[in-house]
Amino acid sequence: MQEYSQDLLFSADARVKTSTHGWRAELLQKLVRFECPVPKTLSLSFSTVEKIATDPEFCVASIIQCFDDKVLFCVRPSPENAAWGGPNAILGVGMTEAKYDRLKRECGVKVASRLFLRSIQSLASAVEGVDFDFMGLLEATDGVSEALKIFEDETTKPFPLDPSEQLVTIVRSMARAWNGTSARILREAKGAPEDAHLGLLIQEMIVGAESMMSGSGTIQLVDSDTGQRQVAVQYASEYEGEANRGLGVRSLTVSEDRERLLVDEISSESFSQLMSYAAVVRKELGEEIQLQFKLKDGEPYIIDGTRAPRSGRASVQIAVRLVEDGIITEKEAVMRVEPASLNELMHRQVAPSAVRDIICQGIGASPGAAVGRIVFTSAQAQMSAAREEACILVRRETSPDDIRGMHSAAAVLTERGGLTSHAAVIARGLGLPCIVGASSLEFCISEEKIITKDGREFRAGDVITIDGASGQVLAGESKMLEASADDAFTILMTWADSFRDIGIRANADTPDDAKTARKFNAQGIGLCRTEYMFFDPGRLTVMREMIFADTSNGRAEVLARLLPMQRDDFVQLFQIMQGSPVCIRLFDPPLHEFLPSSFSEQRELAQALEIPIDDVIQRVSELTEYNPMLGLRGVRLGVTIPEIYEMQARAIFEAALEVGHNGDFVIPEIMLPLVSAQREVELIKERVDAVYDAVQREQEQNFQYRLGVMVETPRAALRAGEIACLVEFLSFGTNDLTQMTYGLSRDDAGRFMSDYVQQGVFSEDPFRMLDRDGVGELLNLGAQRGRSAHPDITLSICGEHGGDPESIAFCRDGGFDYVSCSPFRVPLARLSAAQLAISQEREQLG
Amino acid sequence: MQEYSQDLLFSADARVKTSTHGWRAELLQKLVRFECPVPKTLSLSFSTVEKIATDPEFCVASIIQCFDDKVLFCVRPSPENAAWGGPNAILGVGMTEAKYDRLKRECGVKVASRLFLRSIQSLASAVEGVDFDFMGLLEATDGVSEALKIFEDETTKPFPLDPSEQLVTIVRSMARAWNGTSARILREAKGAPEDAHLGLLIQEMIVGAESMMSGSGTIQLVDSDTGQRQVAVQYASEYEGEANRGLGVRSLTVSEDRERLLVDEISSESFSQLMSYAAVVRKELGEEIQLQFKLKDGEPYIIDGTRAPRSGRASVQIAVRLVEDGIITEKEAVMRVEPASLNELMHRQVAPSAVRDIICQGIGASPGAAVGRIVFTSAQAQMSAAREEACILVRRETSPDDIRGMHSAAAVLTERGGLTSHAAVIARGLGLPCIVGASSLEFCISEEKIITKDGREFRAGDVITIDGASGQVLAGESKMLEASADDAFTILMTWADSFRDIGIRANADTPDDAKTARKFNAQGIGLCRTEYMFFDPGRLTVMREMIFADTSNGRAEVLARLLPMQRDDFVQLFQIMQGSPVCIRLFDPPLHEFLPSSFSEQRELAQALEIPIDDVIQRVSELTEYNPMLGLRGVRLGVTIPEIYEMQARAIFEAALEVGHNGDFVIPEIMLPLVSAQREVELIKERVDAVYDAVQREQEQNFQYRLGVMVETPRAALRAGEIACLVEFLSFGTNDLTQMTYGLSRDDAGRFMSDYVQQGVFSEDPFRMLDRDGVGELLNLGAQRGRSAHPDITLSICGEHGGDPESIAFCRDGGFDYVSCSPFRVPLARLSAAQLAISQEREQLG
Repeated sequence: MQEYSQDLLFSADARVKTSTHGWRAELLQKLVRFECPVPKTLSLSFSTVEKIATDPEFCVASIIQCFDDKVLFCVRPSPENAAWGGPNAILGVGMTEAKYDRLKRECGVKVASRLFLRSIQSLASAVEGVDFDFMGLLEATDGVSEALKIFEDETTKPFPLDPSEQLVTIVRSMARAWNGTSARILREAKGAPEDAHLGLLIQEMIVGAESMMSGSGTIQLVDSDTGQRQVAVQYASEYEGEANRGLGVRSLTVSEDRERLLVDEISSESFSQLMSYAAVVRKELGEEIQLQFKLKDGEPYIIDGTRAPRSGRASVQIAVRLVEDGIITEKEAVMRVEPASLNELMHRQVAPSAVRDIICQGIGASPGAAVGRIVFTSAQAQMSAAREEACILVRRETSPDDIRGMHSAAAVLTERGGLTSHAAVIARGLGLPCIVGASSLEFCISEEKIITKDGREFRAGDVITIDGASGQVLAGESKMLEASADDAFTILMTWADSFRDIGIRANADTPDDAKTARKFNAQGIGLCRTEYMFFDPGRLTVMREMIFADTSNGRAEVLARLLPMQRDDFVQLFQIMQGSPVCIRLFDPPLHEFLPSSFSEQRELAQALEIPIDDVIQRVSELTEYNPMLGLRGVRLGVTIPEIYEMQARAIFEAALEVGHNGDFVIPEIMLPLVSAQREVELIKERVDAVYDAVQREQEQNFQYRLGVMVETPRAALRAGEIACLVEFLSFGTNDLTQMTYGLSRDDAGRFMSDYVQQGVFSEDPFRMLDRDGVGELLNLGAQRGRSAHPDITLSICGEHGGDPESIAFCRDGGFDYVSCSPFRVPLARLSAAQLAISQEREQLG
Repeated sequence: MQEYSQDLLFSADARVKTSTHGWRAELLQKLVRFECPVPKTLSLSFSTVEKIATDPEFCVASIIQCFDDKVLFCVRPSPENAAWGGPNAILGVGMTEAKYDRLKRECGVKVASRLFLRSIQSLASAVEGVDFDFMGLLEATDGVSEALKIFEDETTKPFPLDPSEQLVTIVRSMARAWNGTSARILREAKGAPEDAHLGLLIQEMIVGAESMMSGSGTIQLVDSDTGQRQVAVQYASEYEGEANRGLGVRSLTVSEDRERLLVDEISSESFSQLMSYAAVVRKELGEEIQLQFKLKDGEPYIIDGTRAPRSGRASVQIAVRLVEDGIITEKEAVMRVEPASLNELMHRQVAPSAVRDIICQGIGASPGAAVGRIVFTSAQAQMSAAREEACILVRRETSPDDIRGMHSAAAVLTERGGLTSHAAVIARGLGLPCIVGASSLEFCISEEKIITKDGREFRAGDVITIDGASGQVLAGESKMLEASADDAFTILMTWADSFRDIGIRANADTPDDAKTARKFNAQGIGLCRTEYMFFDPGRLTVMREMIFADTSNGRAEVLARLLPMQRDDFVQLFQIMQGSPVCIRLFDPPLHEFLPSSFSEQRELAQALEIPIDDVIQRVSELTEYNPMLGLRGVRLGVTIPEIYEMQARAIFEAALEVGHNGDFVIPEIMLPLVSAQREVELIKERVDAVYDAVQREQEQNFQYRLGVMVETPRAALRAGEIACLVEFLSFGTNDLTQMTYGLSRDDAGRFMSDYVQQGVFSEDPFRMLDRDGVGELLNLGAQRGRSAHPDITLSICGEHGGDPESIAFCRDGGFDYVSCSPFRVPLARLSAAQLAISQEREQLG
């Protein structure tokens, strides 16, 4: 053993620094440093690999010479980054007639034949692309001769019995595979640069006599699913562990106290050695590592190692435990967890072990999984909820009318739409699993059934499972893994918050949203949309009456009936948020969303309001818009029908005072949507201030409030300077700002977005990932102008982008005060923000 | 006479320069310099007026002293600018008992009484607001005493018989009237600054004996309607001409040779004197002036003068004739004509003398007037056109389906929409009179009638008149004034072109548009929309077939049938434009505009295409968009259904070659709409270049083309640098850019735009006047980035704003190469552009 650890791992190009040998070479080098027994290994740097690929003479002879005393060797890829993949390892290299003879003598004919056949198989399959099962000749009388003949027949050239020739062929083949288009695309998708390199390792093969005490396996000190301490060993008593994995593999987990010897194959002594190597490696590398080992007649060798695989939940657990064990710092722990992996802790999931009867692959638009009975209308969803029966709301697409149905459902499935459709956005906000764009199913809403491509029908009441992470719709009830935010999660988030330097708020419309926001420690509500408060059936009627009122007084009278309800809405929110800021966006949607579109509903409305049906039809037609997104909504309604905002302002102020009396001091924030001109803000400010004065007078009490603008038109961003003079905060609504900057409706983009991303027109759906070039420039312009006109102004973004790590980075760079995102993305955002702060600090330190 | 011209017109505040006395004072001063006989006049500067208004002692005594030797005087306003109005003149000031006695002695009791009563009437009406007819007491026995008594009764104070008191009262009253809210708003609407000033003139009244040889009148040397040379005199043989105008006024026009004496009232000698004064003034002031004169016992005095009133047509004529007479320069002539006044020359109008039976006041959306029979559908309009019968297309609103109907109509009337509605924009493009927003009429389209507020019904076939300038709908056939571009117009435009330094092109879709563009000397077509080419019934069916084709080949096959038609379209345009550039925007509208919305039409389509009706309904529903403006249209269609653009490119190239063979060398320009990302341009450029290569190969001939981008999304403006690298030109589509920058659909803005302008949210409809602050910044950013990335790039704007003088100024400042506007606005744009160049030159010269 000792002989190897001394002369292994030298570079064929000693002047090149280690990092040009790839991650696997680095890892092996470290293992040697920690005195793990590693077989003789030679590392070829990136440039050496390239030189050999073009010049077969280059240093190959000396490499072969290094391994002259060894039986055989293998060639393993050592990519720059483990995640970037690479060609498969090729085993059994270096076979010659002489070595074959020696093997036959030393290990017996069977072992020798098997090794030779494996050498032929490796070269034939991986390099020459020959599809033949050479291993099947193992039982033949003269299998090796037959194999060599077949190799020659298939490739029209004899099997190279010269190790140099084998090596050159393999290096060239691996270099070619690395540079192939599909490999390149795959690794670029994982973030590799265009010129990512491949190093290679040449490693002695450990060949023991054919016994139970020889074989290969892996060992790690952690449970990959839970992250709990647990020794997990997989072992196969075979010659070539890696290539043979799965055949006769014995898998064992050992509790940490391991009172007894567990398997016959591994001696107590070997096991102790492996355990001690693993413990050293964990401590020295500061990471849970899965080691690959070989046993040669009971003697262990460590031939490779990788970062132990782990679920999202496990990654949090591992990071926290490494800190507790004094191995890594809190900062390092925060950096170790991929933010997206937190999703697992916050949502139920289909159990990894569940059998999946997939009936449709749609777009997973909101993570989490749910089981429930199919319902086709929001009313049915509400009835199911009343019966406390989980249901899946199935719609062609959803509209604001479906909000209450969505609140009642366990998950949502729609035929149409993309990641930014109404269903997707609202579901993410509610933390509701959601699949959209399930266009391979036929949606027969009126007949209350969905039909799969192969004709299976699912009707109302049938049970299905929605896996919002993968986008799969599964038949029946699948086995579930429950969500739970464990202690490790809480500890990690506390550390993250201590390093974070940008605020994180949540977008929350309802008390439930607010509770979630609070649970995930959001620093307030960054966007409370008030529309949903008007869609409650009782209120909807009042809203409709308001729409049909002819005069300002008439409208004010009708709205006065909504005032107590709105006030209660805000009282609830303020109470839940316990004094954290709550930013309330005043009424935004076009009024026609409140009017019924079907004739029967219009007739009902006419009867309810006691007006002629023609009046209803005419009003609906008058209010219909060509482009509702660009129509009479937001602050435009506030200017033209000021009674709505006046009522809302009063409700907010009265609620703030009421909650204040009970001890939770609140400074409400009022935000104006869809502003495009300074004067709009001026007009509304006057009116809101008047209500503010009136409420203070009436209640004989002073309080504060903050007025702000939602910057969501390009013009508001450009004119942010003059707008900023009038307000306390600017919050950039990146959803609408993206729509207007691109001239692209997110509701309509679904029809060509995938085409566009595939053709590289957009590198990513700009509603999913913030467009730094266009929208980003407007954000920066707006922020700069706003700040220079009003240095104390609070800047933030709200909207779907708020929870995206890229957007958070953008906002930190731009000096924004906070981002606001869906409540279920708050932990992810907190972690991302902390990682950004730590990364920057590290960069600054060099 | 001589005595007056020497001591008149001195300032009460000699240190103040003349321009602080107002335009009327300046004019009088000039008349004196040209030796016109002007009554003794004293000018009070702005500051003097203000001082008197606050301090009644200030210099009033000395003013009165100046006029001590005169019978009476009048007080006239002298505003800074003639157009800004002011209070009415007050006559007969300075009456005392002594003067009354003297008048009775010198002129007789009747004259004296009339003058006294007029003094009382003036002060009572204009200053005290007493509504009583004092002149009615003229025939009473002791009318003056009675009048004095009534004055005291009504005002509770005696009539001031002290001239100083009278003067102070009048000055104060005039100052108050000038500063009143309504006067201020009125003059601000005419472009006055907030602190516009008022000077006053105190002028001796010319009082002759009551004879035919005393009286007052006006004289000018030009016909106000036509601008032709013609001496026009109005004369009333009365004492106080101005106040009495219209009673017994004689109006005469004299041909220039004036061989004979025309009226008894004016002696040949007096007439010659007046004519010579008028001629001198015209020459010396370089302008046609209307002089106000008095005859005192046959002796003429010039008491005032104004710029002679003139129609648009006359203003052109006058300017050109002043040049021909060597009085002003060509540059000055170009500056003299208000660009908007050219509209009159280019459109028929309701004759000023016509009787107007107004049935509705709508929004005049496209100038010109037309008479025709009402039709309610585009089909009826086309039938009318076939019968060569003028018709007015009456629609609730128009859509692209109505294009052919609009082509066939004499005018368009819609219930809905504003200045930027479909009807308005298309009508302006076609030069078709158009009234939109006629909401006081009830439109019963299905019953084929419109009903006025007072219940009058107009049915299909009834004749109405549309006055697109005033927005008035008139019952019956009104008398018309025909449009004609006369020689003077042509001369003036030639001069304008010689000074102009920015190009003017026209937006032209059809051969008719192109002919108009050519007629008005547009320097090419800046925007040729190709949509209309697909709405011809024959082609519409093919388009629909294309929409239902499933495969790329299927679409290409269908589109191949459209190719020869499109090629012919372009051949015609190229031929008409005779080698001037033609910029063709590729297909832009969403496909659903081509599908029928009613069930019966959908059924017809299903039969025609031999597919199930359900397929048609489903396709219509699939293609329906929430926000068509922001949906799948423009270059997005080009990227996702490339066959359309390929067909269009081929049609354009083949047409260019065909026309080229016949001698008109054409470099076609191809413009891509709705670009928001560089890659869109890259993808289309590849495809268009491929077609270009193919056509060159097939026809064995080389030619050139220019590719460009219509910058109409904010993102395209921001990313203009990278886009510019790929193209030859950028044309800013300010309509859509305004929509997206504001987040405001012009089709939907009508519902609140007037509210917004009234409340000062927008200073003007941004679709009418370019928003310099927001949209303008994007234009400048885009232009700068485009130019710095590609210095030779051609920059322009197209869209409704192109013809607006403000926008032209903006584009000149930004270094744009040309603007493109509706063909009927081309002359206006040419003139505006010339004026801007001349103004800038003048400013630079100091």
